[in-house]
Amino acid sequence: MRVLMIGDIVGESGRTTLSTYLPRLKRTYQPDAIIVNGENAADDGRGITRGIAREFFGAGVDGITLGNHTWDKREIFDFIDDEPRLIRPANYPEGAPGASVVRLTLSQGTLTVISLMGRTFMNNLDCPFRKVDELLTSIKGKGPILVDFHAETTSEKQALAWYVDGRVSAVIGTHTHVQTGDERILPNGTAFLSDVGMTGPYDSILGMEKEVVLKRFLTQLPVRFEVARGRSQLNGVLLDINVTSGIAQGIKRIRIDDDQPWFE
Amino acid sequence: MRVLMIGDIVGESGRTTLSTYLPRLKRTYQPDAIIVNGENAADDGRGITRGIAREFFGAGVDGITLGNHTWDKREIFDFIDDEPRLIRPANYPEGAPGASVVRLTLSQGTLTVISLMGRTFMNNLDCPFRKVDELLTSIKGKGPILVDFHAETTSEKQALAWYVDGRVSAVIGTHTHVQTGDERILPNGTAFLSDVGMTGPYDSILGMEKEVVLKRFLTQLPVRFEVARGRSQLNGVLLDINVTSGIAQGIKRIRIDDDQPWFE
Amino acid sequence: MRVLMIGDIVGESGRTTLSTYLPRLKRTYQPDAIIVNGENAADDGRGITRGIAREFFGAGVDGITLGNHTWDKREIFDFIDDEPRLIRPANYPEGAPGASVVRLTLSQGTLTVISLMGRTFMNNLDCPFRKVDELLTSIKGKGPILVDFHAETTSEKQALAWYVDGRVSAVIGTHTHVQTGDERILPNGTAFLSDVGMTGPYDSILGMEKEVVLKRFLTQLPVRFEVARGRSQLNGVLLDINVTSGIAQGIKRIRIDDDQPWFE
Amino acid sequence: MRVLMIGDIVGESGRTTLSTYLPRLKRTYQPDAIIVNGENAADDGRGITRGIAREFFGAGVDGITLGNHTWDKREIFDFIDDEPRLIRPANYPEGAPGASVVRLTLSQGTLTVISLMGRTFMNNLDCPFRKVDELLTSIKGKGPILVDFHAETTSEKQALAWYVDGRVSAVIGTHTHVQTGDERILPNGTAFLSDVGMTGPYDSILGMEKEVVLKRFLTQLPVRFEVARGRSQLNGVLLDINVTSGIAQGIKRIRIDDDQPWFE
Ligand SMILES: [Fe+2]
Ligand SMILES: [Fe+2]
Ligand SMILES: [Fe+2]
Ligand SMILES: [Fe+2]
Ligand SMILES: [Fe+2]
Ligand SMILES: [Fe+2]
Ligand SMILES: [Fe+2]
Ligand SMILES: [Fe+2]
Repeated sequence: MRVLMIGDIVGESGRTTLSTYLPRLKRTYQPDAIIVNGENAADDGRGITRGIAREFFGAGVDGITLGNHTWDKREIFDFIDDEPRLIRPANYPEGAPGASVVRLTLSQGTLTVISLMGRTFMNNLDCPFRKVDELLTSIKGKGPILVDFHAETTSEKQALAWYVDGRVSAVIGTHTHVQTGDERILPNGTAFLSDVGMTGPYDSILGMEKEVVLKRFLTQLPVRFEVARGRSQLNGVLLDINVTSGIAQGIKRIRIDDDQPWFE
Repeated sequence: MRVLMIGDIVGESGRTTLSTYLPRLKRTYQPDAIIVNGENAADDGRGITRGIAREFFGAGVDGITLGNHTWDKREIFDFIDDEPRLIRPANYPEGAPGASVVRLTLSQGTLTVISLMGRTFMNNLDCPFRKVDELLTSIKGKGPILVDFHAETTSEKQALAWYVDGRVSAVIGTHTHVQTGDERILPNGTAFLSDVGMTGPYDSILGMEKEVVLKRFLTQLPVRFEVARGRSQLNGVLLDINVTSGIAQGIKRIRIDDDQPWFE
Repeated sequence: MRVLMIGDIVGESGRTTLSTYLPRLKRTYQPDAIIVNGENAADDGRGITRGIAREFFGAGVDGITLGNHTWDKREIFDFIDDEPRLIRPANYPEGAPGASVVRLTLSQGTLTVISLMGRTFMNNLDCPFRKVDELLTSIKGKGPILVDFHAETTSEKQALAWYVDGRVSAVIGTHTHVQTGDERILPNGTAFLSDVGMTGPYDSILGMEKEVVLKRFLTQLPVRFEVARGRSQLNGVLLDINVTSGIAQGIKRIRIDDDQPWFE
Repeated sequence: MRVLMIGDIVGESGRTTLSTYLPRLKRTYQPDAIIVNGENAADDGRGITRGIAREFFGAGVDGITLGNHTWDKREIFDFIDDEPRLIRPANYPEGAPGASVVRLTLSQGTLTVISLMGRTFMNNLDCPFRKVDELLTSIKGKGPILVDFHAETTSEKQALAWYVDGRVSAVIGTHTHVQTGDERILPNGTAFLSDVGMTGPYDSILGMEKEVVLKRFLTQLPVRFEVARGRSQLNGVLLDINVTSGIAQGIKRIRIDDDQPWFE
């Protein structure tokens, strides 16, 4: 089973970039499933709307993972419970709305997608390590499992990947908006990439207008972050997973921007 | 001018890996200068000793940058002032021992190396943005300038790189111990890589024994971190800089481990 | 010289409580100057408006100190430069609008009021220790000096107080919204209280509706904090300062609420 | 039932101060139970030893609560499981050694003591709110219950107190080492004090040598904290609890130092 995962889609720039490249990526790589992180997909880079989620699903996306920006648009509380393919971090305290595990039925078999969030320098969520144990116990007849681990630090990301090595097909990090170059398959068969990176403005700071972010660093005064304009980038990862064993067989990074343009 | 920078050398594993690959890297790439980050080079991964610094210089290293672990070995206070090629972050409050800018005279010209540290989720140092302005003003007859920006977050790293674009040859991040795949040359000529990654144990969490780090995450009890054993990795970056203008002309990541082995 | 300082006024509740008790406090204590912290005085507890500042000055307040919420109301940028008695933390990077030191001419002499902010668990401001040195050097013909140190941790507050002991008349902490009971005069004559506490809703969490704050702690989901309703409290401190030497001669806490009611 | 709780005993200074005042406090107040926080009782202010715990029990202490410094002395792992009256925070992940709830049988009835730790700006422990629910459910035939809430922020402390109002006799904060002046009995009968303060060196920063702590703030270089010398202070709180209902009937702060000396 081939899974294409694309990192944090930021604002209209990210959405347009996704819709531009998705047909080409499908044509070239023929993925069985496409997962995107959508926590920054709204126009201002904060959260996601129902309309945007539908747009993604309409374009062939199979599941949308989220993160610390899940709840930024208030309307999410109105529709997240209706949409099982919107996947919010599983380690919010019990009772949080929305799904955090989804089982996607594909022609090739079933793909389980799990979202988890780190705690270091982030919210005081429940322990992601114990939570993943709990979730993995509850999943019957496993097959391929993809974990989007939305976390700040490389140490928490590596720790989680080693913790579940051999028990899931892949741990792909999100949240830092910068793709890492450490893709590998761990000894027991779990593919790992610390962060898949973002999709959206290329000449920006994490997708945001750089002058505004710089003003913040220089003055420590409040600023209003805006999604940047101009040329864009796409960052993703391609995973090949054995359907029977759930073991990863390949992991390949995808980076598309003016410095590393796409050639079909 | 060609500069080879190698990321955080961790413990004996990192030092051995450096000494194994350095001759081959020199042979293949013919760098004019070699800079390594040495903040984790001591046996326990904390700080650096005089002996290790000498060993690095003896092997052909031209400058050693440091970071938040600079002061971990108490003996550093005894020798850092004697060693101008040991470069600690410049934005410690005035009066801190040691140099934070070094001008290396090479056959090709002069290379200036600056160390700076981020503040987000780190120590309360002086503003790295204003500090870099101050340092750049004080450097006369510029030529190539390399900044090692030792920081936790991708946002602070990107912000600093954009801030100095066109004023330094390269901003290379360190500290997260994971190489990023976002190398590029910014519009005004500054090469940028969010993090160059570490050199040391490959099957580890940031170089440390993974079982111990996992125990920490799972129990929240204190543990004694130890440098991991077993196979190793090397992460570095190669920069080509125009000696006259100081503008970067090329940036190439180097990653060596069992999944991406070195072929000469 | 007798100075009455009243802690963080929160919302309409805090403003009403201030206007209720201020005449009585003046009658009883006959202060020469009245300073209030106004960073939470706006209706929603975030920042201050020009109208509220004028209301305070009209009621006999001589100076309004601020803190991390200084900039919450955008209109502050329009009027802070016109109002020298609005005092924002001095250790924002140079160039921030507004005054951070004010010299109030009273019948008894001149009172200097300084605002500083801590860094631990707060913004990355400039070092408050070096900043206070700088400010104290620049003040000529000293006399009484009051420092409002807006900080989170008791360690940073105690450290600053010891650092300036004998150089200012008083260091009074703000920001935690809870009055501490550690008032004292340090050996060289500086009065110190870790935190003066807040003025506003008594049955609340730091002035905010408690159910909402609890929801935040329990669910980790975003909530909209609101200033609480119901009965209120006032927290302040009274300082007696020798006008010639600037040395503190007395420090007395004031706490008014239903459990410790006011008797004239 | 009358309970005397004394805040974080720091080093030898704190231990000596405790042994000096305990007989006098017993004589004057006739407490039925004495609880002390012992997380800083070791000579260097970090953790506690078996010998010190025994010394406290020998002097008439009925229970010793702990906090984030629980595990600082490695020997704690050898004896904490043998000593049910040493009470570590209950919200460490399941499996942590030691007791976190103790039921003390006194002539007046049974006193339950619970230790909990906050998470804001502290370790990533389990949710203290859900943990306290769980503990309170498991306690049968309640009677007086004292909660030591070891936390950094006033907001988390107030939140927990409101959360358990009417379900426990008292929530007494520890950890900041500064006594607050906000003692009260909440509407449903729970006594509350944000922080009881520390016992140990008076001319210090949280009990530590002030020059060393100041050096840390000023230079950001590592220092070796030492318990301060010189005169000392004691901070405590006295609680009167209805044995049948568990409702608090009185709360009185105790502060003893050279500025507020003790008179029998
Ligand atoms: Fe994101
Ligand atoms: Fe995120
Ligand atoms: Fe490092
Ligand atoms: Fe580091
Ligand atoms: Fe405030
Ligand atoms: Fe504040
Ligand atoms: Fe303590
Ligand atoms: Fe503590």
